[in-house]
Formats: sequence, structure tokens, C-alpha cells
Amino acid sequence: MSDQRQFIPREEATPPFFAGVDLGGTNIKVGVVDDRGRPLSWLSIPTRPGRGPEDATRRMGEAVRRAVRKAGLKLDQVPRVGLGSPGTMDIPAGKLVKPVNLRGWDDYPIRDRLSHHCQRPVAFVNDATAAAYGEYWVGSGRKFHSLVMLTLGTGIGCGIIVGDLLIEGENSHGAECGHVIISSADDARWCGCGQRGHLEAYASATAVIKRTQEALAAGVESSLVARLETGDELTPKLVAEEAEGGDRLALDIILDTAKYLGIGIVTLVHAIDPTGVLLGGAMTFGGKDSPLGRRFLARIKQEFRARTFEVLARRTKIDFASLGPDAGYIGAAGIARLQHHHSALAPR
Amino acid sequence: MSDQRQFIPREEATPPFFAGVDLGGTNIKVGVVDDRGRPLSWLSIPTRPGRGPEDATRRMGEAVRRAVRKAGLKLDQVPRVGLGSPGTMDIPAGKLVKPVNLRGWDDYPIRDRLSHHCQRPVAFVNDATAAAYGEYWVGSGRKFHSLVMLTLGTGIGCGIIVGDLLIEGENSHGAECGHVIISSADDARWCGCGQRGHLEAYASATAVIKRTQEALAAGVESSLVARLETGDELTPKLVAEEAEGGDRLALDIILDTAKYLGIGIVTLVHAIDPTGVLLGGAMTFGGKDSPLGRRFLARIKQEFRARTFEVLARRTKIDFASLGPDAGYIGAAGIARLQHHHSALAPR
Repeated sequence: MSDQRQFIPREEATPPFFAGVDLGGTNIKVGVVDDRGRPLSWLSIPTRPGRGPEDATRRMGEAVRRAVRKAGLKLDQVPRVGLGSPGTMDIPAGKLVKPVNLRGWDDYPIRDRLSHHCQRPVAFVNDATAAAYGEYWVGSGRKFHSLVMLTLGTGIGCGIIVGDLLIEGENSHGAECGHVIISSADDARWCGCGQRGHLEAYASATAVIKRTQEALAAGVESSLVARLETGDELTPKLVAEEAEGGDRLALDIILDTAKYLGIGIVTLVHAIDPTGVLLGGAMTFGGKDSPLGRRFLARIKQEFRARTFEVLARRTKIDFASLGPDAGYIGAAGIARLQHHHSALAPR
Repeated sequence: MSDQRQFIPREEATPPFFAGVDLGGTNIKVGVVDDRGRPLSWLSIPTRPGRGPEDATRRMGEAVRRAVRKAGLKLDQVPRVGLGSPGTMDIPAGKLVKPVNLRGWDDYPIRDRLSHHCQRPVAFVNDATAAAYGEYWVGSGRKFHSLVMLTLGTGIGCGIIVGDLLIEGENSHGAECGHVIISSADDARWCGCGQRGHLEAYASATAVIKRTQEALAAGVESSLVARLETGDELTPKLVAEEAEGGDRLALDIILDTAKYLGIGIVTLVHAIDPTGVLLGGAMTFGGKDSPLGRRFLARIKQEFRARTFEVLARRTKIDFASLGPDAGYIGAAGIARLQHHHSALAPR
């Protein structure tokens, strides 16, 4: 869906409709979906975080109205809007607390401000939870009863869905699964959060770059050396290209990343026992359409299966997410839909 | 409540009433509670697992009827019975699968057989989930929105409650938190389940005994040596006694156990973000009424706080469970109550 979005025409869609907003540090994606999670329209605007939260939120509200028009709808056909936002946040209060990628947006009451700007009630959720719900509703997890979704990028985001319940946490810190401990050794790797031994310290894009730098500094031979000498930047994508070209170090780095993810997934599966675990985000090495992506996934499954109970090794599904960058706004809209249908059943 | 059970008289109790059964390898505890979780009666019968599941289940049914009479009630005032049972199990199917402490009970349809013997619908849950729900309903967790409860004994049992949702898992393996990985080192300790590095391999009673044996075999000085020479058995209780008597090794073993638990709790809290984490079971070193128990808890909290996010270090509660051995039957009855009230709202 991500590369070639398919929209359904208004006359084939099932009302009511919901708008979803996926707030990122660089872009804000906005889309409108029908009651079955099928997109009718989509657009993206720049976040411009430096201009402050009120400017962005006003433009977010306009973008929602624009996406609604683009879908051939009127605003009153869209009873609710969902907003997926990066943490840290206070979900019940509807506020950003100290969002890492949105400097200066601290303590901003974004839920109510967006609600003001688009004149709709807003469901406010964590962006990784929104993506997980999107996959659960209409993506790779649509046949699951419960799922854990890991979003692999600079850090590791996580969403957990059990039935129609989002594990948001008492302090809006639910599903911080990038920060489960996979090594308690005294010399365990440092995580970006300031603690040691977390999954994110081993298996995020940041960790891939760091582990590669360390190996190169230790003198391990690799075709990466020549690439870096020509001025290429060291990224997981570059490591993937050299791994595809047959470089041993690059491949080892990627397969070790998969091993660490397998270990983290064992811990999460033993706590939650979900139908499946989905992997999304930029650092999936091409996903199921790429031989390297498939090898990455196979190595994750191998580590998981070797370390779990026999019944879970057999039954727990591990797969790539399928909605790509659309998961966030679709999931946010889906959570708005949940709240709408619940409140329709039991108005407060 | 465990040492001096307090029962409320029939005339002060709030109907409807629910019976709970806590099936263990040695004893079966049965109690009746009112709609607010207050016990009216209690009794215990031996499991006698060698006589097979049908014999025990028949006696379980009789015990339920007896507990109902003891409470001054008739069976038709008890619309549903809850059964907490050790795993492995298949919760939707109502069957034991391969229960470790009940040899020969494999694949027994215990839910429907108990229902037959006591002529009531039976809610079938994992024993650790039942204990967690008991604490959540009327114990240490009664002001929590969500909790993780660890039951420390021969192994480490775990129950996770989020709102009124039990994390039972897609394969009835939810909350197998004794088997989260705390060490991925190649020489990590072996767990009873056959895998390496699990919390249970470091912090169960079995692990305490093993770590003590290793230290003594390595020649560490300890007052335990003299105790063992007089024929005392090496148990966590013996280790606790010597720790209380000032023995350094014994105290180190207990405080290291607390450290490992702190590490496991970080992982669980980062995944779930519950209101609190409760510790129950036999291996709590006297709990809050004992200086050693309080020191054990303080060390757990210290490790947790040093390794988590600032907001969680401040807010997440870590405490002892309060219902002792009553948590299981009260929780099982509470889950029966949940099912009763849900089915009353939406009969199928």
C-alpha cells in the first residue's frame, strides 16, 4: 500500500468515516478511511517543528479538512479524528510531555488544540500504538487476536494490542519494548535512553551503525571501507547493499541484529503470548520482497524458535508489517473509530 | 488474611456469590466470596494427584457444595464457579494439556468435568492469573488499574491484569514472565524449562538453592555449612534464617535474587507500564512483616529505579501481595464473577 496507495471511491465506502493523523518529526501524514479501514484520501504536510506546536497543529487541522474534502466527504460525515504522536506524552491528559523529536513542544495540549482546529473530538494515542492498531485492523495482523509490533528505525518503537485493548500503560509508557533488557552484563551496550542492555542498544539503526563502526575500527575486512572512502554515509541501507553484494561483515551485522531481535521477541512473547509479532519501520532490509529481508526474518524466527516453548515455536507468527508508512494514520483513524463506536454504545 | 482468615457473616454479604477453586499439586483450596470479594467460607482438601483427575475433580465438586453450605448458602445462590489451575493448559478448550505437577492428568477436560460435578458453569483460568486477579480485585492491587504479579516459589509464576482484561495469551501461555530473558550471555544459567538466561533461572527458589550450593562448593565461608552438617535441608527458608543471623553469603544470595528480580521487573514494566508490580508466593522472605523481607523488597526497588525511566522510577509501585494463599481462590471466584456479569449484560 505504501508505494502504490489504493483508494476506494466514496460510493463503495462504508460510513461512518474517520480521519487519522500521524505526527512525525519531519512530516505529518493525514488520511481518511471508512468504517472498514479502507483509505479514501491521503496527504502529507511538513511538520516544521521549529515554528512551534500551535502552528503545526493549526495546519494539521486544515490538512484534516482538506483530506475530508479530497475523500468527497463533508466534515459532519467524519465523527472523530485520531492522532498518533511520538512520546513522551500524557495520554489521559491529551498532552505532549517531552517529545524527543519535537523540541520545544513540551507540555503542549495537542489533543484539545487539534480538536479545536478541526472541530472534531480527537482520539490521542502513541504513534507506535497507532501503527500496531493499523496492522491489527487491516494489515498483516488482521487475522490476529493480539499482536506485538516492533517499528525498527533510529530507535525501536513498539505497540501491543490485545483484542480491542491498546496497552497504553498507566503512565503512557506502555509498550516501550525497545527498552526491554536483553543483556544484564556489566559491560552491556548503552542505550540512547541512558541505560544499559536494552534491545534498542543492540538492534536499532543506531546500534547497527555503531556495531559496524566498531568492527571496522577493529580492522575487520569489509567492502564497506571502500564505500565509506568514496564519501558514502554509514547507514543500515549501506550495510544492506554491501551485504547483498556478498560482504561478510555487513551480513554478519544484519544477522546479529536479527538474533538480538529474536531474543527480545522471546521475552515479549513469554509475557504476552500474542497471536503474532510484526516488524515494521525503515530498518527491515527490504522486507519480504527482498532476499536480504527474507533472510533477516528467517534469522529472527530461528533465534525465537530455538529459545521458546515448543507450542509457541510452532504457533506464534512472526512477519513483516504490510501497511508501511500508512499504518500510523490508518491506525489512528481506527482508534478514533473504536472510541466512536464505544461512546455510541455507552455515552457518558 | 492468610494466617487469620476473616469471614463476613451471610447477612452482611452482597449477592450474588461465587465459589473459587485453587488447584495445586498437593492441596485444593476452595472458598466462597460475595460480589465484593469478601470470603464467607473456606476449606482445603488434598489433591491426591496419583488417583487421577476424575477422582480429584469429583471431590472438588463436593468441596464446592460443602463450601457453599458452610457459607450458609444454597447452590442456586452461586451462579458460577472459578477454577485456577496450573499449566500447561488450553483455556478456550477448558482442558489441562500437560500439567507439570499433576502427572497423568494430560488432556483432561477439567472445566466441563468440574461443571458436571458441581452443576455450575465454570470459569477456567491459569492459577497465577487467578492470584493476580485476586490481588487486583481485593488485595494489594485493589487501587491499581493494571498489575503484574510475580509468584515466587519453586518456579516463578506470573499474572498480568490490564483493566478487567486478563492477559491469558493466544496459546494460554500469557504471562509466562518467569521465562523472560534477563541474560543472553552464552553461559547464562539454565532454566528448568530447558532454556538459558530466564528470570526463573536466577530468582526462583530452585535458583537460590543452586546459587548457594555453588558458592559453598567454591569454598565461600558461611554459617550455612554448620547448619547443613547438622542435617538441615538447604532451602530459601534456611538461607533466610542464616541471613537474619548475620551470615554474609546468605544475605548476598538473597540480595542478588532481589537484583535479578529488579532487572526482570524493568523489562515487564517497560512492556506493560502497569500501575504496580506485586510479589507473592512462598519465597518473599517474610514479606513486609520481616526486616529481611523489607530489605529484599528495597533491593528490588533500588535495582528497578536505577534501570528505568525517571517517571516510572517515581510512579510504578512495587509491593508485596497481601492475600497470601487466599489470592488464588478469591481471584478464581472473581473471574467467575466477571464472566457472570458480562454474560448477564450480553447473553449469548
